[in-house]
Amino acid sequence: MGSVDAEVAVGLSARVTDALRSFLAARRDELVAIGTELAPIGEQLTSFLLEGGKRLRPAFAYWGWRGAGGTDSDDAVYAVAALELVQASALIHDDLMDGSDTRRGQPSIHRRFERLHRESGWQGPPAAFGSAAAILLGDLCLTWADQMLFGSGLPTDALGRAKPVYDTMRTELMSGQYLDVLGQVRDHHSVAWSLRVARQKSARYTIERPLHLGGALAGASTGLLASYSGYGLPLGEAFQLRDDILGVFGDPLVTGKPAGDDLREGKRTVLIALTLERASTAQARVVLERLGDAGLDDAGVAVMREIIAETGALVETERMIAARAAEAVRAIEGAEVVGEARGALRDLAEAATSRTV
Amino acid sequence: MGSVDAEVAVGLSARVTDALRSFLAARRDELVAIGTELAPIGEQLTSFLLEGGKRLRPAFAYWGWRGAGGTDSDDAVYAVAALELVQASALIHDDLMDGSDTRRGQPSIHRRFERLHRESGWQGPPAAFGSAAAILLGDLCLTWADQMLFGSGLPTDALGRAKPVYDTMRTELMSGQYLDVLGQVRDHHSVAWSLRVARQKSARYTIERPLHLGGALAGASTGLLASYSGYGLPLGEAFQLRDDILGVFGDPLVTGKPAGDDLREGKRTVLIALTLERASTAQARVVLERLGDAGLDDAGVAVMREIIAETGALVETERMIAARAAEAVRAIEGAEVVGEARGALRDLAEAATSRTV
Repeated sequence: MGSVDAEVAVGLSARVTDALRSFLAARRDELVAIGTELAPIGEQLTSFLLEGGKRLRPAFAYWGWRGAGGTDSDDAVYAVAALELVQASALIHDDLMDGSDTRRGQPSIHRRFERLHRESGWQGPPAAFGSAAAILLGDLCLTWADQMLFGSGLPTDALGRAKPVYDTMRTELMSGQYLDVLGQVRDHHSVAWSLRVARQKSARYTIERPLHLGGALAGASTGLLASYSGYGLPLGEAFQLRDDILGVFGDPLVTGKPAGDDLREGKRTVLIALTLERASTAQARVVLERLGDAGLDDAGVAVMREIIAETGALVETERMIAARAAEAVRAIEGAEVVGEARGALRDLAEAATSRTV
Repeated sequence: MGSVDAEVAVGLSARVTDALRSFLAARRDELVAIGTELAPIGEQLTSFLLEGGKRLRPAFAYWGWRGAGGTDSDDAVYAVAALELVQASALIHDDLMDGSDTRRGQPSIHRRFERLHRESGWQGPPAAFGSAAAILLGDLCLTWADQMLFGSGLPTDALGRAKPVYDTMRTELMSGQYLDVLGQVRDHHSVAWSLRVARQKSARYTIERPLHLGGALAGASTGLLASYSGYGLPLGEAFQLRDDILGVFGDPLVTGKPAGDDLREGKRTVLIALTLERASTAQARVVLERLGDAGLDDAGVAVMREIIAETGALVETERMIAARAAEAVRAIEGAEVVGEARGALRDLAEAATSRTV
């Protein structure tokens, strides 16, 4: 069984992509049946969902399912693949809110439709059309997500158990996004605030709730769900802390985003909060001046990187990641998970925190 | 039983509001438990949903349910009330896309959060914060809608029958919205195009699908669902045509929107398409110049109204409304609906097409 499960782990991402491909092909046909003018919606969403994405949330949900005794099946993969549609909705709307030009190395959705407008020679401002399209495409992904999950073919009682988790997850996602936006407009630069947003936005939404969703589908015990939290929450914080570092120090060739994009967007990350907490007055002034400057160039990014490293904030963030990853692994060692799930979740903890993209 | 049902019809709107109040109170508590900073989300959505709205979609869904033999229950009212949350999501996002300042006589959601930003003295542009909040609140309403519908307490098999209808309805809604936006940027002023958008955006979403949703919940036959379409599609077109007229000729004190707002937004309605089809070259030039002019004043609106009336487009639109309303009533007379639903649907046809708001 070991070798079968190893193959499952390796092939899971491809199977999630296949499930999405099949689901999206059916939606594309529906759209074109309504009107051929809708073809670009199907095309752009297919490209957005199939040409990128780490499939991390489906992986956690899948192993949450397996760890609670669920057996491998295409229906289960189809169900957890729906989380990629929730994430696509969040990314499309997030890129619009942040005014981000790119995502996964490609133009963001509002930019793609801005270009469609321009190339078609339509009337009015292209940016307004791009924004409207991005709002509607994000909405569509959000509704398609539950269409995919609840149309997965898993038994009704399993889906019924998962529904409250799914509802909670989505409310927490929108809440985390709102707190994130709020952090950028309010004078909240504390480490505590940034950690709270990270917990809300990433720890719960990216890891804990996908695990719970998979667990609930398989009828997990309360004890196992608690173990999933014990693993998911610290790991989710570590995941977000890694994201913070990549947002400043990540290689644009690998991340698909311009270097230091988080700085230009003025994100109030734990990394920045730690930097400001430890910075000299002169250093803090430089950071606050440049944070959120949309025109920040490579030299400006380099100066910021230097300060973040010099204050020790970078090392401290790495230390926090390591401590949380270790806590997560300890929690899963002690959990009553079934079969190969323990090893898979250990591997996922490693993958989520040491990633370069 | 007749008098009981008459009371049901009269009290339905209040019961829908009560169901929303109870659902939203629980969501507000959840939000505040996540963070007290989220309180404005719950407050503004509660005010948006409880202080207005014609409850038309829940009414059609309710009578679709009753007409298919469903018995009156609070669970059924709770289920159909969820359609108000779908509609709230659409309105919040629509107002943002259109840049509308008001809705139901109150500030639109993005304007409310713009004001919160301004009054709180937060950093950055208030409009960007308002937009981000409106995107997230619309997303939240969309997810809450299915939480309410599928948490209504109706039997699982009933909800399972309704799910495909619900999925189709939402895809059609987003598609219709996209076609509407497309109509504003493309050179499509034909009556055929505008009617197509009206059918997609209003006829299906506002009337046919709510009827189907209620019908599916109650296990309606294919024949009855077809009758609901025979009633819902012409009535939905009539509803949208009435909306077009109110958007130009409506009393702002009654509609809660500034007079002639549709003209300022440049909406490509059937009324406008008919006007342009029948206008002299000089009249057409005036209409095309002023359509979509955000600064159009009352005198400008008056000139447009005159041309719309002079060309006969207003009379023709009224004729189209009457013909469609009659077709709808004929369809419901011949349908196999149960009990008082026939009379209620006849009354709803009247209410939806002769309304002043």
